[in-house]
Amino acid sequence: MRNVVVTGCPRADLAAVDELTSFGVATVHEASGRTGYLGPGIRPVYLGSRTGGTAVTAVCWPGDNLMIHAAVEQCQDGDILVVTTTSPSTDGSFGELLATSLRQRGVRGLVTTGGVRDVTELNAMGFPVFCAAVSAQGTVKATPGAVNVPVSINGQRIRPGDAIVADDDGVTVVARTEVAAVIAAARAREENEDATRAALRAGELGLDRYGLRKILAEQGVEYLDFGSYQEQP
Amino acid sequence: MRNVVVTGCPRADLAAVDELTSFGVATVHEASGRTGYLGPGIRPVYLGSRTGGTAVTAVCWPGDNLMIHAAVEQCQDGDILVVTTTSPSTDGSFGELLATSLRQRGVRGLVTTGGVRDVTELNAMGFPVFCAAVSAQGTVKATPGAVNVPVSINGQRIRPGDAIVADDDGVTVVARTEVAAVIAAARAREENEDATRAALRAGELGLDRYGLRKILAEQGVEYLDFGSYQEQP
Amino acid sequence: MRNVVVTGCPRADLAAVDELTSFGVATVHEASGRTGYLGPGIRPVYLGSRTGGTAVTAVCWPGDNLMIHAAVEQCQDGDILVVTTTSPSTDGSFGELLATSLRQRGVRGLVTTGGVRDVTELNAMGFPVFCAAVSAQGTVKATPGAVNVPVSINGQRIRPGDAIVADDDGVTVVARTEVAAVIAAARAREENEDATRAALRAGELGLDRYGLRKILAEQGVEYLDFGSYQEQP
Amino acid sequence: MRNVVVTGCPRADLAAVDELTSFGVATVHEASGRTGYLGPGIRPVYLGSRTGGTAVTAVCWPGDNLMIHAAVEQCQDGDILVVTTTSPSTDGSFGELLATSLRQRGVRGLVTTGGVRDVTELNAMGFPVFCAAVSAQGTVKATPGAVNVPVSINGQRIRPGDAIVADDDGVTVVARTEVAAVIAAARAREENEDATRAALRAGELGLDRYGLRKILAEQGVEYLDFGSYQEQP
Amino acid sequence: MRNVVVTGCPRADLAAVDELTSFGVATVHEASGRTGYLGPGIRPVYLGSRTGGTAVTAVCWPGDNLMIHAAVEQCQDGDILVVTTTSPSTDGSFGELLATSLRQRGVRGLVTTGGVRDVTELNAMGFPVFCAAVSAQGTVKATPGAVNVPVSINGQRIRPGDAIVADDDGVTVVARTEVAAVIAAARAREENEDATRAALRAGELGLDRYGLRKILAEQGVEYLDFGSYQEQP
Amino acid sequence: MRNVVVTGCPRADLAAVDELTSFGVATVHEASGRTGYLGPGIRPVYLGSRTGGTAVTAVCWPGDNLMIHAAVEQCQDGDILVVTTTSPSTDGSFGELLATSLRQRGVRGLVTTGGVRDVTELNAMGFPVFCAAVSAQGTVKATPGAVNVPVSINGQRIRPGDAIVADDDGVTVVARTEVAAVIAAARAREENEDATRAALRAGELGLDRYGLRKILAEQGVEYLDFGSYQEQP
Repeated sequence: MRNVVVTGCPRADLAAVDELTSFGVATVHEASGRTGYLGPGIRPVYLGSRTGGTAVTAVCWPGDNLMIHAAVEQCQDGDILVVTTTSPSTDGSFGELLATSLRQRGVRGLVTTGGVRDVTELNAMGFPVFCAAVSAQGTVKATPGAVNVPVSINGQRIRPGDAIVADDDGVTVVARTEVAAVIAAARAREENEDATRAALRAGELGLDRYGLRKILAEQGVEYLDFGSYQEQP
Repeated sequence: MRNVVVTGCPRADLAAVDELTSFGVATVHEASGRTGYLGPGIRPVYLGSRTGGTAVTAVCWPGDNLMIHAAVEQCQDGDILVVTTTSPSTDGSFGELLATSLRQRGVRGLVTTGGVRDVTELNAMGFPVFCAAVSAQGTVKATPGAVNVPVSINGQRIRPGDAIVADDDGVTVVARTEVAAVIAAARAREENEDATRAALRAGELGLDRYGLRKILAEQGVEYLDFGSYQEQP
Repeated sequence: MRNVVVTGCPRADLAAVDELTSFGVATVHEASGRTGYLGPGIRPVYLGSRTGGTAVTAVCWPGDNLMIHAAVEQCQDGDILVVTTTSPSTDGSFGELLATSLRQRGVRGLVTTGGVRDVTELNAMGFPVFCAAVSAQGTVKATPGAVNVPVSINGQRIRPGDAIVADDDGVTVVARTEVAAVIAAARAREENEDATRAALRAGELGLDRYGLRKILAEQGVEYLDFGSYQEQP
Repeated sequence: MRNVVVTGCPRADLAAVDELTSFGVATVHEASGRTGYLGPGIRPVYLGSRTGGTAVTAVCWPGDNLMIHAAVEQCQDGDILVVTTTSPSTDGSFGELLATSLRQRGVRGLVTTGGVRDVTELNAMGFPVFCAAVSAQGTVKATPGAVNVPVSINGQRIRPGDAIVADDDGVTVVARTEVAAVIAAARAREENEDATRAALRAGELGLDRYGLRKILAEQGVEYLDFGSYQEQP
Repeated sequence: MRNVVVTGCPRADLAAVDELTSFGVATVHEASGRTGYLGPGIRPVYLGSRTGGTAVTAVCWPGDNLMIHAAVEQCQDGDILVVTTTSPSTDGSFGELLATSLRQRGVRGLVTTGGVRDVTELNAMGFPVFCAAVSAQGTVKATPGAVNVPVSINGQRIRPGDAIVADDDGVTVVARTEVAAVIAAARAREENEDATRAALRAGELGLDRYGLRKILAEQGVEYLDFGSYQEQP
Repeated sequence: MRNVVVTGCPRADLAAVDELTSFGVATVHEASGRTGYLGPGIRPVYLGSRTGGTAVTAVCWPGDNLMIHAAVEQCQDGDILVVTTTSPSTDGSFGELLATSLRQRGVRGLVTTGGVRDVTELNAMGFPVFCAAVSAQGTVKATPGAVNVPVSINGQRIRPGDAIVADDDGVTVVARTEVAAVIAAARAREENEDATRAALRAGELGLDRYGLRKILAEQGVEYLDFGSYQEQP
């Protein structure tokens, strides 16, 4: 990793990102071909927030938030700040003052593989935060890193300007160049789900609706009455 | 494990299960002789729900929810669906559409050693979910497994038709044939706790009420004044 | 560890502890020179509570809460009970009855490296609990331990009578003899943060306010335009 | 769980268990229909030992090895002692003295979900130990539990007298009544593997030998030349 | 992720990769600007092996090794197979038969974020394996994935044809286009380390050799005699 | 924590520490009243080494080994360097060059709650290392910390000059002022174990030797014949 701050990154179209966000994380992840999900380890601090925006990335040394400060300057209206560390760290490298600064610039939320603190204040501000830990442990501002380089979280690639969608199910990323295609797929998926939901409410089974009885039979799943099923002694 | 769907399983009496549920998880676990608890790893998605019902079990391959769909058909009014995987998996194999289908059949909740998604929607539905992870990661419907075979979670045996009780303390299971006995024990325990609570509120100490001073003395616990206690240098 | 109950421990001044508590965990931790934090593994059962008091410590055997009962007797108005185990344990060694007894004595909360249960009831009581796990698994009262000996959690030393502050960011400890100094440092820090918050709201960057541009330059961080940045192929 | 010591348990035939052991854990697990494996968390203390025998089970309280002592008396020639705790514990509840006692009775090894100590001495004795942790932390002998009741580890049921096979791949269990059937399946599997091994050495691909090209095609996997594959930007 | 098998990928020069390998993982990681390390979670099954080669990548569904079989066909002399799963899985998706097939093709080792089995046989073969788990748990061959697409492990990008170096310190990756530059940096580093080693053996301190006394002074680290240092009471 | 290097610390008598070391970790831990053990998370890099010495402590920032370099200068013949970080870190902050420097000063080993690298070289040197992780991830030398202040690992207090004993069972600490008493207790324990070992080899049971039958009876453990034991259905 070179110690660089990359400026002037192109971003996904914000109106498109807003539409993407309206579908929610699970639908966007599915519409992306089941990719982009940042994993069950990154959770909202408080349940109930949904947000979306364009990624600004920061790579920090563990226990050090120098590059978050450098990243703030690169943020603009509609962004979401995405923070990783070079090795695992739960330290609280982000809190209410940084959120104040981000909000002043129109930033919509924070995603971090590390820790945050001041969560009462963050919640009072209504600033959406998705993180791996809450920790009051403070950090220093001493070690270089990078801003707006591509990062990987849970095996998913995040480039600056990519679309980020986050809600109670976690966080997912859509490549800047794929946003339009994923919106189209998400729309189709949602229409299909509406019809399925109505059918399920009417009592139709997923076994029938998705044609799964054939798979069960092909895979050799037997139906046995309780009386004839003999558990191994 | 045979790839079977066992049908027509007998269930614990639902009225008895409802009474059991009213005691809550901690009391039921104690009244079962401190058995049946599914461990601290299975947590409610949202705090505040208490539910109980009769178990329908499903064993899935990791990353595959085919057998959940097969299990839905075996569910009836008053059931709770209990899902495990053949090896650890956090994937979101359960979401709002499956919950819609379960609710249509009168199912009261989901317990899973894996992950769920659509948690905003599940909460809006008021559908109780107890799980080990929240994950938007999708699953396929390709690999066989089993429905209504006995499963083990945290070393506790769950057979189809057993009583499940779940609340903010987690999930506990009571064998179908033990429900009446556990209800009796839970009633006795609760009466005893009412009396203890009143005594504690009046200032009596647990040391006296439970006769623990004798144990402390037998075990050689000394009382020392702060002045005479010398911490090791 | 000797099996002792130490009595008559001196405590930090309660009025001073109350002032300390008003600053919150993150500020107190920073004002202590970034020490005292008990780590991200100890979390409030419910978000939204802030409490503080003087420590009474208990060391239990895993799966055994005998020494919690012995500790209750040593508690007085303004205390917080701090529980550890000799080796890791998630068992629910603390619940509503013990909380009832503690409240009767004026105790303000519980901090434990282990597990608690009856969390619905604890919340209904409004009794603040900070723990590593929720578990309905019950404990016995058979094995000796210690009360009011110094303990260490996450590398931080807690002596009886030390000040404990706990909120949504976790738990921090301040040595009894350091309370006054930490209050002074916290006041100074808060005044400084007020000024910084106003500046950030007005659009000043942390890069400028904290003089970080110089560090970035010294550390060799380059600013590159997106067009000239060539990701490694 | 009742606090019982069950005596006089029937055991799987020892000659059959020896034959089973000769196949190794992976083959026995496969020949059991991919069941019985106790999971990746139970590992040999030293690589290089393979053992097998009939299970004697012990359920201990965490931090307490009273029931291991009770279990020793129930052990006979050809047995393997299988230890679990009522809730997770890494304490070193087993060491060289207990191994000495077990060896004197002809016991072939230890399997535990907890911890062991004296591992240098255990290795010098050549006593096979499979455990979740090594820990010098000592235990007491104070709390009741059970011997020779069915236990579950990693969702797998172990009854007294069942066959246990353990090697560098971990530990697997075969129900007492299934040993003959699993031996037959393991023999067939091994013959098949011998032929496959020869074919693979000769350069045949698994894709062809297992007929996987058809599955790849059916599942829509495309083959693309590097030049025509365009990674998402 | 598209379900593709990418063929004909260019590879790093094998002679250069061999030279790179000779430096070992720690030196290569440092010479890469402290990037490329796949983290402490991927460990050799047996200590003592060092290997290096060019990456062929496979992305599998958890519990499914279909794509490993597809990847074997893409492997050639000097390659190392790198396996990931779409979500975390410890299942033993790789064993002795697959190693036999890889060896027949000249493959030098396996790196996986999942599990392996047959470790006794793998060691007897001398086939280097670096993995996150050992597990006898078997897998199916049912679900599509990808071969020779870029993957990310521990935030590090691995493209097909990149250089992989693995030893007792773990695994590191060097981009195909960076191999020559990293070799040059590693050579310089090693010469420097030779001189440092000689100086340290002669009693020079790192404090002096690296100029750290100035940093300690700048950062305000005080030297205090034991007598004048007063631990907080 | 103050940023200090404490010099001139008194140490436990080295001949006494050597005698202590001869007993091994498990015996020393027991002879200390079951205290001092640093937990199952700190393991030898290679099995088979036993070492002991007097503690020099270092507290580092995560990802930074500046204070290890400062600690080297404080080390003398017979010491063991004990490293912790202010928050959890697996980075490889210690390797072969630092070991070379320590050995030159007569240091006998390293204990760290973090990570080490160059493990092949460390083993070739025969330098004993006990750590929580192996990681090639490099560190910087930028952030202050402390040397020879008291530290806590796994709840155990380590002061400079305390005795450290480490072997395959892990690491334990004995306070400098307690060494003589612990040696006496360890001798008594070992004599007792010799007699017990002989008795167990002769077939006596722990149940009888330790008087456990009485405890089992008091605790209500029943002995039931297999035929009369009815597992819960």
